[in-house]
Amino acid sequence: MFESAELGHKIKKAVFDKEVPPLREALLNAQFELAQTAKFPVIILIGGVDGAGRGETVNLLNEWMDPRHIQAHGMGEPSDEELDRPMMWRFWRALPPKGKIGVFLGSWYTWPILNRVSGVTKAADLDQSMERAKRLETMLVNEGALVIKIWLHLSKEKQEKRLKALEKNPLTRWRVTERDWKHFKEYDKFQEVHESVIRHTSTAEAPWLIVEGEDANYRSLTVGKIILKAIEGRLALQKSPPPKVGAPPLLPPIDNLHILKTLDMKQAVDKEKFKVELEKYQGKLNSLTRDPKFKYMSVIVVFEGNDAAGKGGSIRRITGALDARQYQVIPIAAPTEEERAQPYLWRFWRHLPRKGRVTIFDRSWYGRVLVERVEGFCAEVDWMRAYSEINDFESQMVRHNLVVVKYWLAITNEEQLRRFEDRQKTGFKTFKITEEDWRTREKWDQYEQAVCDMVDRTSTLLAPWTLVEANDKNFARIKVLKTLCERIEEKLKELYEEGVDYLDKPKVDTAKSAKSKKDKPKKRG
Amino acid sequence: MFESAELGHKIKKAVFDKEVPPLREALLNAQFELAQTAKFPVIILIGGVDGAGRGETVNLLNEWMDPRHIQAHGMGEPSDEELDRPMMWRFWRALPPKGKIGVFLGSWYTWPILNRVSGVTKAADLDQSMERAKRLETMLVNEGALVIKIWLHLSKEKQEKRLKALEKNPLTRWRVTERDWKHFKEYDKFQEVHESVIRHTSTAEAPWLIVEGEDANYRSLTVGKIILKAIEGRLALQKSPPPKVGAPPLLPPIDNLHILKTLDMKQAVDKEKFKVELEKYQGKLNSLTRDPKFKYMSVIVVFEGNDAAGKGGSIRRITGALDARQYQVIPIAAPTEEERAQPYLWRFWRHLPRKGRVTIFDRSWYGRVLVERVEGFCAEVDWMRAYSEINDFESQMVRHNLVVVKYWLAITNEEQLRRFEDRQKTGFKTFKITEEDWRTREKWDQYEQAVCDMVDRTSTLLAPWTLVEANDKNFARIKVLKTLCERIEEKLKELYEEGVDYLDKPKVDTAKSAKSKKDKPKKRG
Repeated sequence: MFESAELGHKIKKAVFDKEVPPLREALLNAQFELAQTAKFPVIILIGGVDGAGRGETVNLLNEWMDPRHIQAHGMGEPSDEELDRPMMWRFWRALPPKGKIGVFLGSWYTWPILNRVSGVTKAADLDQSMERAKRLETMLVNEGALVIKIWLHLSKEKQEKRLKALEKNPLTRWRVTERDWKHFKEYDKFQEVHESVIRHTSTAEAPWLIVEGEDANYRSLTVGKIILKAIEGRLALQKSPPPKVGAPPLLPPIDNLHILKTLDMKQAVDKEKFKVELEKYQGKLNSLTRDPKFKYMSVIVVFEGNDAAGKGGSIRRITGALDARQYQVIPIAAPTEEERAQPYLWRFWRHLPRKGRVTIFDRSWYGRVLVERVEGFCAEVDWMRAYSEINDFESQMVRHNLVVVKYWLAITNEEQLRRFEDRQKTGFKTFKITEEDWRTREKWDQYEQAVCDMVDRTSTLLAPWTLVEANDKNFARIKVLKTLCERIEEKLKELYEEGVDYLDKPKVDTAKSAKSKKDKPKKRG
Repeated sequence: MFESAELGHKIKKAVFDKEVPPLREALLNAQFELAQTAKFPVIILIGGVDGAGRGETVNLLNEWMDPRHIQAHGMGEPSDEELDRPMMWRFWRALPPKGKIGVFLGSWYTWPILNRVSGVTKAADLDQSMERAKRLETMLVNEGALVIKIWLHLSKEKQEKRLKALEKNPLTRWRVTERDWKHFKEYDKFQEVHESVIRHTSTAEAPWLIVEGEDANYRSLTVGKIILKAIEGRLALQKSPPPKVGAPPLLPPIDNLHILKTLDMKQAVDKEKFKVELEKYQGKLNSLTRDPKFKYMSVIVVFEGNDAAGKGGSIRRITGALDARQYQVIPIAAPTEEERAQPYLWRFWRHLPRKGRVTIFDRSWYGRVLVERVEGFCAEVDWMRAYSEINDFESQMVRHNLVVVKYWLAITNEEQLRRFEDRQKTGFKTFKITEEDWRTREKWDQYEQAVCDMVDRTSTLLAPWTLVEANDKNFARIKVLKTLCERIEEKLKELYEEGVDYLDKPKVDTAKSAKSKKDKPKKRG
C-alpha cells in the first residue's frame, strides 16, 4: 500500500523553481473560478506520519493560494465547547461553504487512529469509526463536495532520519516533540493501523492519495498538482442529472390503513384536569433539569406536525418550565444563504446544545423527507438517502448522551380547516395563515404518505417518534410534557446506573481531556 | 420502525380474490419481459420473525410466477462444502443471473442476527457484519442487480397468537418447532437486534420494506405488488450513462519514478544454483502442504504479469510440487456467457478452494483494474470502486484462513520484444503470440500506470503483492516458490499458535456446525 511512497522520489531545485510559478498561477485561476461559480466546496484532509511534512504542506497551501478563499484548521485538542458535543460537531462547524477550500490538518481519522494504536479501542471499534467516516464522506460527496484526502508517508528509516535532521537544526528543533519520538517507537503499530484505515476508507468517490513526504520539492509539487487537477476536473464536469433510483419503491398502499388513521383523535383533556396536569408535569420537568446528573446530558426536542397543529403552544408549555439560560428554540424556515452553501444537515449540527442544555427545533431536518420530498425541492435519490443519514445523525447524538425526543402533532383534515378559517377571521391570528398553507393543504394525502414513511424509517429505539393526537390542544400539551419527562427521567436513571460515558472522544494523548474525564464527575457531580 | 406493520392490516377474501388474477398476470408479464431482455437479475430477500409467513411467501411466489425463471433458496444449515469456504460463498453460488429471479429465505442477515441475540457476538461484531452486508448489496446494485428486501413482521402478541393457531391445526402443527417458542421468549431481544439491522442496512438503493405478516391476504397482495412495481419500475428505467467520477484523480506523475522502475531487473540465478534451489523449495512446499494443520487453511495464488513474463512456467514449478488432487489451476480468459450475466467477482468466487486445497489463478479479478481499465471495457467509476471491492473480497478470504499470494511478474519492454520475436520464430511457440499481444504492447505506459495504482491500492498486510523480477526465468521461479513457502509457513505457525478459528460462521442454533467446530480439530488435527 505504501510501496510507491517509499521509492525515494526527488525533484531537483532547478526543476522545482521552474515548475512552481505556472502551477501557482493555475491554482489561483482554479481557485478564482471555484469562488466565482461557488458550485461546490473543497475539503482537503492532510493525514500521515509525523515528520512527513503535514504542517509544511498546510503552510505551503496558505502561501500559494488566495487566503480569502482557503481556510486551514489545525484540529488539535478539542475545546470544552467541543467536548460537550458529539465528536463530529467540531468538523461540521469548520466545513467550508460552496466556493471555498477547507484544509484539515487533523480530521475524523486522527483520534480513532491514536486510540487504536494506544490500545484504548479494539479493532472492531476502529472499523466502526471508519465506517462512520466513510458514511460522512459519502454524504458530503452526495451533497456536492469535492473531498481530497492526502496521506503523507515516510518509511521508518526515513522518519528517523528526518526527525533527527529537524532536531539538529536550531531553526526547526521546536518541531520535534517527545511525542514524535514516542510515536516513532511505535512505527510498526502505526503502520498497521494506518494501512487498515486507508484500505477501509479509500472509496471511489474519496480515495486516499499517498504521497512520499521526504523530499519537500517532490511533496509540494505533488500535492499542488493533485489539488489543481482535482479542482479543474470537477469544474469541468458537467453536472449530470441525479441518477434515477433503481430500488424498489416504498410500500404501495394496499388496504388504505396507515399509522395516522389509527390515532384516536377524539382524546381530550378538560380545562380543570389540564390545569392540574400542566402544573404537575411542568414542575416535574423543572426538577428533572435541575438534577445534578442533568449536567452530563442534553436534550433535543423536535416538533413536526400539520400546519396549525399547535406546535408553538406546546413549545411554550415546555419552555415555561425551564430556566431561560438553559434552553434555546430554533425555528426552522427556508435556509439562509450561508446554510444553502452547506450540506442540508449543517444548519442543524450548528445548533446542537452543550451538555446540560435543551434545544427545541420548531420544524427540523425532517423537512428533507416531508416538504422537500412532496414539493420536489430535492431529487428522489436525495430524500431516499436522507433516512439513513438522519438515523446516523441522531445516533451520533444519542451516543453522546443527547436525548432526542421527536413529536408529530397530528390534527384531522376537518380540524385543520376549522383552525385555518378561524385564523383568517381573527385579527391577531391572520399573520399565521398564508397562501402556502392552503396550497399545502391540497396535498394532504401526499404529506400523510411522507409522514408514515418517515415514522417507519426513522422511529428507532434510540430516537423514537411520539405521535400526538392534537385535535384537542390540552390533550396534546399534556402528552408532550409527559413524554418529555419520561424520556429525561429514563436517561437520568441510566446515567446514575452506568456513570457518565464519554464515547467517541479523544481518549489518549490529550492531557486536557484525560484530566477532564477524571475530574468532571467529582467537581460537578 | 415497525409501527406501520402493527396496525392490523387486513384484506377481505372477496377483495383478495378479485385482485389476485390481474396481479398474477402482471407479474408473469413483467417476469417474461425480464427474462427476454435479461438486463438485470432480481434478488429478493425474505426476512422477518418466526410465524410471519416467510415460508408461505416463498411458496406463493413459486406458485404465482413462472418457475423456469425464479429460484428459491432455503439457505438453512450450511453444508460441509460451504463451511469450508468464506460465509458469503454459498450466497454467491446461488446468485441469479441476469433475467432471473432469486428468492432467499435465509440470507447474509440470518446468522449475524442469531449470533447477536444469543450473545455469541458483540454489538460491534453485528455492526461489522451489517457493514459487510451493505457493501455487498451496494456492489450488487452497482453491478446492475435489483435488490428487494422484504421484512415480515408480527407484534409479540400476534406472534404468540399465530404460533398457537398453527399448533392447534393438525395440518400446520409441523410448522411450529421448539425453536420457534424459544425465539418467542426472546422476542424483545430479537426486536432490538432486528431494528438495529434494519436501521443500518436500509439504504437508498436497497431499503427494507416492512410488511405486516398476520393476515395472509394482506401479506400476499403486498409482497406481490412490491415485487411487481419494483420490476416494472426497473424495466422502464432508461439506463443512464455511468456517472462521472467527481473525485480527485489518482496520483499524477511528478518525477517519472514509479515502483516498477525500482526493480533490479538484472537479477539472475544460474543453471546449477537453480537446480539446487528448485529442489529445495519444491520439497519444502510439498512438505508444508502435508502438514497436519494444512487441512485448516487453503491457498489462493494469483498470477498477473506482462505478456510473455513466464506465468505458465512459474505455475508449473508450483504444481510440480503438489499432489494432483490438491490443486486446481484456473486460467482466466474472456468471461463466458454465464459469467457475463453475473457481477464480475462471481467467476472467481465460484472457484474458491475448500480447506486443504490450493487454487492458482492464471490472471484474475485484477483484470478489472488492468485490462478492463486500460482498454475501456468498463467505466471509470467501475474500476475505481473495484479496488475496495477487491480488498473486501480478499479480506473475506483471509478471515477464513485462506492465504492469498499475489505475484506480478515483471519483464522489461526490451525483454518482452525479444520473447515476442522468439515466439514468432519458433514453431511450437507461435500459438502463444497474437495480434492482441502486439496491440497491448503499444499501451505499455498505460499498463504500467495501472499496475502501479493496483499495487498501491491493493497490496495490503492481509494480502500483499510480490513483485517478481522476471527477465531471468530461473530467478523468477525461485522467488515465486520461496515466497509461497514463506507465506504458507507463516500461516501454519499462526494456526499452531492460535488454534483453528471459524470466524464468520454460524455459531449457534446449528447442531451440525457446533459439532464440527468441536470435533474437527480432534479428528483431523
